[in-house]
Amino acid sequence: MTPAGNETGLAAPPGARALLLDTAGAIMREGDVIDISLSELSLRSGLNSALVKYYFGNKAGLLKALLERDWQAIVTSVDALVAKDGWDPESKLRRHLWKVVDTFYAVPYLNRLTMRVIRESDDVEAQRIADSYLSPIYRAYEQLIGDGVKAGVFREIDPQLFYFTVTGAVDRFFSTRLVLKHCFDQDTLTEELRDRYREHTIDIIMAGILAR
Amino acid sequence: MTPAGNETGLAAPPGARALLLDTAGAIMREGDVIDISLSELSLRSGLNSALVKYYFGNKAGLLKALLERDWQAIVTSVDALVAKDGWDPESKLRRHLWKVVDTFYAVPYLNRLTMRVIRESDDVEAQRIADSYLSPIYRAYEQLIGDGVKAGVFREIDPQLFYFTVTGAVDRFFSTRLVLKHCFDQDTLTEELRDRYREHTIDIIMAGILAR
Repeated sequence: MTPAGNETGLAAPPGARALLLDTAGAIMREGDVIDISLSELSLRSGLNSALVKYYFGNKAGLLKALLERDWQAIVTSVDALVAKDGWDPESKLRRHLWKVVDTFYAVPYLNRLTMRVIRESDDVEAQRIADSYLSPIYRAYEQLIGDGVKAGVFREIDPQLFYFTVTGAVDRFFSTRLVLKHCFDQDTLTEELRDRYREHTIDIIMAGILAR
Repeated sequence: MTPAGNETGLAAPPGARALLLDTAGAIMREGDVIDISLSELSLRSGLNSALVKYYFGNKAGLLKALLERDWQAIVTSVDALVAKDGWDPESKLRRHLWKVVDTFYAVPYLNRLTMRVIRESDDVEAQRIADSYLSPIYRAYEQLIGDGVKAGVFREIDPQLFYFTVTGAVDRFFSTRLVLKHCFDQDTLTEELRDRYREHTIDIIMAGILAR
């Protein structure tokens, strides 16, 4: 890809690809949606929507690139945490839960987007996405929980089911802004709310898994 | 509504309304989707799709009727549990968690359908849905958790956040069949899987909330 000049005849400013992804993510986060219109994307980013075609082929390609950007950061971070020397399993799990809340605060659309892209992919591509992004996280859970059980600090907990418990609890909270709005008279994801939910999540999950 | 004969000129067999709702729910559950095509509904139910117009006005009306059917059963059941004499808060919460897993096993689409219908409603209707179905459940949690904290059996847990933890963890599990398929080579919601997840959920949530 050249930074300027392409078959569309448009100038592609430096950083345009990243800006399109950033803007698409911001639209999904603010609107609590997992779809975007190319005209809104163009308006918000200040970039010609033909650049979507240039960089991503089409909107589906843009969605997949956003998915890969977000998941790659998560997988890298989780792998680094699990491999960290000198930290015990309890500290690693607390730190991981802290970061899961941060992640869903930043990209509350990610799980729904993942399900959508998988659903719209053929079997081979769906399997590639699962192998690249979902399975590594699950294997990290197996490692982290297994280490803690071996060390006698965690109870015997099934890592597969634990994975659903954690990601479900956190995802649900940040992706149901409509419930917040109509039941609790609060419809923005403030940092105060994030911190309150983080404290709650770490508290109840750690109490649920720690050996007495 | 008359059981037979209407402005569409169609015969409406006894039980047709309930059958349309049952069939719509079964399609969503099996396909892991929150949309249905009227032609599939007609094919599967053996009923003319003009009956949707007769009973529900349009597809949006059908979705809302399904939502109301499912939520009404939940609210009634939760209210009865909270009001039950002679059960302590721990027994009530265990029983509630048991039933939440059953509910999501039966209607795994319900939370996504709720968010969709709220999103597509105007503010007044969205508020009515929240007041009718979401707030009663939240108030039941306040009561149930509050009773347990007062009795000294539960730790101080925020019922609002606890509500998200429980429904999120359970909902996520049953509504991400695609993850099961591609990561765990398992793509149907078997009773064995339900029972395994139920045991896990009750175990980790109760350990998380019970006072030591």
